[in-house]
Amino acid sequence: MSKIYVAILGATGAVGQRFIQLLEHHPWFRVAEVVASDRSAGKPYAEAARWVLHGQPPSDVANLMVKPLDAAIESPIVLSALPGEIAKTLELELAARGHVVSSNTSSHRMAPDVPILIPDLNADHVGLVDVQRQKRGWTSGALVTMSNCTSVPLVVAMAPLVKYGIQKANVVSMQAISGAGYPGVASLDILDNVVPYIGGEEEKVEIEPRKMLGKLAGDEIALLDTVISASCNRVPVIDSHLVVASLSFEHVPSLDQIKADWERYTGHDLVRGLPSAPNPIITYTETADRPQPRRDREAGAGMTTTIGRLRPCPILDVKFVALSHNTIRGAAGGAILNAELLLAQGYVQGVGSVALAAN
Amino acid sequence: MSKIYVAILGATGAVGQRFIQLLEHHPWFRVAEVVASDRSAGKPYAEAARWVLHGQPPSDVANLMVKPLDAAIESPIVLSALPGEIAKTLELELAARGHVVSSNTSSHRMAPDVPILIPDLNADHVGLVDVQRQKRGWTSGALVTMSNCTSVPLVVAMAPLVKYGIQKANVVSMQAISGAGYPGVASLDILDNVVPYIGGEEEKVEIEPRKMLGKLAGDEIALLDTVISASCNRVPVIDSHLVVASLSFEHVPSLDQIKADWERYTGHDLVRGLPSAPNPIITYTETADRPQPRRDREAGAGMTTTIGRLRPCPILDVKFVALSHNTIRGAAGGAILNAELLLAQGYVQGVGSVALAAN
Amino acid sequence: MSKIYVAILGATGAVGQRFIQLLEHHPWFRVAEVVASDRSAGKPYAEAARWVLHGQPPSDVANLMVKPLDAAIESPIVLSALPGEIAKTLELELAARGHVVSSNTSSHRMAPDVPILIPDLNADHVGLVDVQRQKRGWTSGALVTMSNCTSVPLVVAMAPLVKYGIQKANVVSMQAISGAGYPGVASLDILDNVVPYIGGEEEKVEIEPRKMLGKLAGDEIALLDTVISASCNRVPVIDSHLVVASLSFEHVPSLDQIKADWERYTGHDLVRGLPSAPNPIITYTETADRPQPRRDREAGAGMTTTIGRLRPCPILDVKFVALSHNTIRGAAGGAILNAELLLAQGYVQGVGSVALAAN
Amino acid sequence: MSKIYVAILGATGAVGQRFIQLLEHHPWFRVAEVVASDRSAGKPYAEAARWVLHGQPPSDVANLMVKPLDAAIESPIVLSALPGEIAKTLELELAARGHVVSSNTSSHRMAPDVPILIPDLNADHVGLVDVQRQKRGWTSGALVTMSNCTSVPLVVAMAPLVKYGIQKANVVSMQAISGAGYPGVASLDILDNVVPYIGGEEEKVEIEPRKMLGKLAGDEIALLDTVISASCNRVPVIDSHLVVASLSFEHVPSLDQIKADWERYTGHDLVRGLPSAPNPIITYTETADRPQPRRDREAGAGMTTTIGRLRPCPILDVKFVALSHNTIRGAAGGAILNAELLLAQGYVQGVGSVALAAN
Repeated sequence: MSKIYVAILGATGAVGQRFIQLLEHHPWFRVAEVVASDRSAGKPYAEAARWVLHGQPPSDVANLMVKPLDAAIESPIVLSALPGEIAKTLELELAARGHVVSSNTSSHRMAPDVPILIPDLNADHVGLVDVQRQKRGWTSGALVTMSNCTSVPLVVAMAPLVKYGIQKANVVSMQAISGAGYPGVASLDILDNVVPYIGGEEEKVEIEPRKMLGKLAGDEIALLDTVISASCNRVPVIDSHLVVASLSFEHVPSLDQIKADWERYTGHDLVRGLPSAPNPIITYTETADRPQPRRDREAGAGMTTTIGRLRPCPILDVKFVALSHNTIRGAAGGAILNAELLLAQGYVQGVGSVALAAN
Repeated sequence: MSKIYVAILGATGAVGQRFIQLLEHHPWFRVAEVVASDRSAGKPYAEAARWVLHGQPPSDVANLMVKPLDAAIESPIVLSALPGEIAKTLELELAARGHVVSSNTSSHRMAPDVPILIPDLNADHVGLVDVQRQKRGWTSGALVTMSNCTSVPLVVAMAPLVKYGIQKANVVSMQAISGAGYPGVASLDILDNVVPYIGGEEEKVEIEPRKMLGKLAGDEIALLDTVISASCNRVPVIDSHLVVASLSFEHVPSLDQIKADWERYTGHDLVRGLPSAPNPIITYTETADRPQPRRDREAGAGMTTTIGRLRPCPILDVKFVALSHNTIRGAAGGAILNAELLLAQGYVQGVGSVALAAN
Repeated sequence: MSKIYVAILGATGAVGQRFIQLLEHHPWFRVAEVVASDRSAGKPYAEAARWVLHGQPPSDVANLMVKPLDAAIESPIVLSALPGEIAKTLELELAARGHVVSSNTSSHRMAPDVPILIPDLNADHVGLVDVQRQKRGWTSGALVTMSNCTSVPLVVAMAPLVKYGIQKANVVSMQAISGAGYPGVASLDILDNVVPYIGGEEEKVEIEPRKMLGKLAGDEIALLDTVISASCNRVPVIDSHLVVASLSFEHVPSLDQIKADWERYTGHDLVRGLPSAPNPIITYTETADRPQPRRDREAGAGMTTTIGRLRPCPILDVKFVALSHNTIRGAAGGAILNAELLLAQGYVQGVGSVALAAN
Repeated sequence: MSKIYVAILGATGAVGQRFIQLLEHHPWFRVAEVVASDRSAGKPYAEAARWVLHGQPPSDVANLMVKPLDAAIESPIVLSALPGEIAKTLELELAARGHVVSSNTSSHRMAPDVPILIPDLNADHVGLVDVQRQKRGWTSGALVTMSNCTSVPLVVAMAPLVKYGIQKANVVSMQAISGAGYPGVASLDILDNVVPYIGGEEEKVEIEPRKMLGKLAGDEIALLDTVISASCNRVPVIDSHLVVASLSFEHVPSLDQIKADWERYTGHDLVRGLPSAPNPIITYTETADRPQPRRDREAGAGMTTTIGRLRPCPILDVKFVALSHNTIRGAAGGAILNAELLLAQGYVQGVGSVALAAN
């Protein structure tokens, strides 16, 4: 199989750069187009982007000319890390024009016919693509979204436990600066400091997990019936979000049952074999002071969620600590996995699941 | 009034240094003796201590010869920042020998006849000194303790709200490295990192506030009937502990009532006029992203607790963020305030409350 | 004497905030006007400025309405922390209109009739104000500038040694993030990192000290005949610039002579009694690993330069480490001191040096 | 070829851990023995070592029982990261007993018959092993050392330029905390701070490069005739040492010549094909603000030195910035490369260079 072309929207930003870094040796996809704001358009990527990751941009992308936002896109798959305002209209237009759009932006996450996909947890929600095609009259186009990055460690930890009836989830996050993009957080605001507020974040964490863990019933997702309370904080950490969470259940499992559920969790069948599928999805650590951002964020190439410190909670039933890489698992890597799922499930026009089998 | 001599135990450590810094211009006390382990004993203080605060040690203390732990102490007042193991016996011996010991160590906090004093909240608990003198046969000696530093922002925020019947308190801390003393936290453990575990801390935070906010009834303190759940984390911040807390009440007050209770809180009458009394005890900030460690820890010379972000909690009733300086309000400054209270209340032999009036 | 009104230009920026903080209790000056860009104009200062220092802005300034850049200024003294482009014309216009402008901006530093004042080193350079008034036809107006912040620790260390004939000076800086203003350095660029380049900085450090340490001869300053090589680096430190310097001399002094010269250095007579005069100008520390930014930047209320580690250099003659607070001594505090000098020397119209004597 | 067993001395420390991490998938070597102080001996490695790198120790090493320092070692090759005092005698004893010891410790670096090997620069210095065997009566044993980590970026940058006659080298380092081992630098000493002193470091940097770049003549190394002046600083960076250097030459090359010399530098022939040989040895970057520790330390799997900012120096001839990973290139990776060289050159008894050819 020759590689499928993808376009990166918002290619010069922090998440855009992660897309490019993660796709450098991707077995299915190849970055063919990089799209960014007018300020960057018309320049070679290496010049337009201030590369904030390790090293330098991959040489094949470094020489791509950045296209403006209104350029005609040719790639069948579009990965979007656009700012919310622009995403609101542009992502819909691209889907309407037939592109399969895997977005990392929040704009459309709560639209009833748009799934928030974390395929290992809810690959079946991809069925909403059929709904949106029918409703919106799209033929080959599609729009799927990636979760808010802070919800990821929480929702991954919750997924194997939904069967016990999660009634309440209290979550306090300690989030990395890369979550705010580049230039993002001013160093004067965060060195020797914590900022106990991130605009709009708590609202997202209190609702998005309920959709992700909900059930696709007919034309929409029935939200999981759980009350979530979130407090979000920025800490001086480069990458990965750590959450301190406590849960209460309808049927309270033992700590050992929970650990076993986490460790055995293999996720949805449809995800097996996708190149970016996390492996394992969850690692539970018995080390007393782990997970830690700097030491656990690279687990499973940044796609594995590490959980530790499971213990009883005097108020809810149990509490624990969970960590996911925010710009890999919680952003670019997640959105790539979503595109892989769409491709594998035959949603990308002219590229059948048969073709993939030959891969 | 000429100044009263105090001895500092554990004088070379991080909290010992704060004692010395805060007492440099104290109107009542003068550091007359510095006591530390054998390794330091016999050297001038400036040579024995690796000064970790700003500048250099005050010149009068710099030249004091460090005394060994078994030296005879002459000062009537003893401020202790000893390691727990040593404090366990030595603080009792010193009290038995007639010294008034104000300790920052955890060893004796939960002893039934030893108060955990935060005088603005519970100055009347000083009455336990009479109990301990009677029980233990001490004549002029006394032992009072200072709260665990992480409990401070929580307990200060709770104190004005006890009247509503606090049923549950969930607290997640983000704690400064200075809380672990010197050398304490290795830089390799905390730069670009968070450590989601601090040995023994959660247990303290789940019980000590209940004693501090309890009622002195007869010979002991009846614990406040509140369930506390604590999760403690170390973050790369120099000074001050930030807590994210949520509370539920028997009689739920409005957000405005709570803010008013905090802002009007003047604390216990016995604290008025003490040199280190916090002024104000609480500042409530309406700035959306405050309190922040680096920007709010110096409030009220490090003795004021700053609270912000009061809002409804979907699980308990309300949630908020609170911050106190951990080595001033939460350690050395607090223990000095306790010594001031004991002096003002006539518990220091040969120094009456009358004498103080002439100050 | 009633206080003299001053206007702060660029009042909402990082240096503008330091001006306001340092003037809160100033004995001579009172902030009467705050001026900033259109984005801020028309709002109360507390709302227009994102306060990046400790605590909150002083309450009297918090309520001042921010004036636009083209507003008529009434204060006789203007302290400027404007961006270079705007300063280039506006500072001249204000001086032409009769204001005494003490600028922290680089735009006019190298103009032949504009002094770069560090009054303890070169107070006599204030004589250039007479030159500029004559040349430019200004009556009561004046324009003086403050040194680049990185040159300060170098030039302060060099000043007492000029008598030995400094031939070469090699300097490598480690500079705080606050030197780049707010938002300034992105946290993603500096956490766990060093940036070995600061645009335009090395050029300034290689020439400005030669003017500051030059001799006023007739209408202009004869540059000090010294070759300077500078390498400038940004490090993850909040405040204060550290320089590692080596010097060669025509007449090589002993290390003891140099230490004595530094410790005895009292600076120019005209500076005595000015409220912001550094006291002492230099502290030499024998502690092996000092000066350090966090522990020495507050020395002398941020106006004292701390030097340490003087030792022979195998290439030049001697090497040492020096540190000054970059936004106090190296910016706002220095520019205030310059305004004090101008006032004390009778350069502020309607406010004589006699009036000051009555202070 | 089956893998050759190696023993790691000082296996639980920071450099010891890097040895283990780097050898996890090494094509020639396998960690068979881990040796550490009495405190660790007798425990499984995973329990004895507080792992400070990413993730967890490799599982095969995790279960090895730690041996005490006086244990009989069976592996022919010994990699040593011992503290200096212990290394002084133990490394000699092991060489005398027939082991090939590749040490990262400074104890024996300046002994006349012990080479400081950076094989790409001076692989021929390995000839000193024949000298030491003859002089000391060792049969199959050998002792070679790895450079001080701070000298590495300097000496790599100097090597291709030695032909121009380097007369003087001024170097100011900004060094990572991992260079001090674990626990090493206290976080209270380095957060928001720089420590402008590292005990013993400047002396090493002023002499070791002269030996490394010297010529093996008969029984010893003739030191390179260059004067080096070093100033060493600790900065809040996890890994990699950055140096700001200036050089003067007998025959001054152009900047373009120097860049070409760096970019074309392929190092000593004997290094080709060694598994850990840096590839490339040097990368020159034209990006104005690079190299930077966090963004360039991983270059070439941590073995490549990145250089940038080459420009004229007003005092010496040229100046530039260079960066090497301190615990990979500058410690564990370098010492592994040295062991590879010794093996490839037939210095490991019973393992001929022929065997390697079959690899």
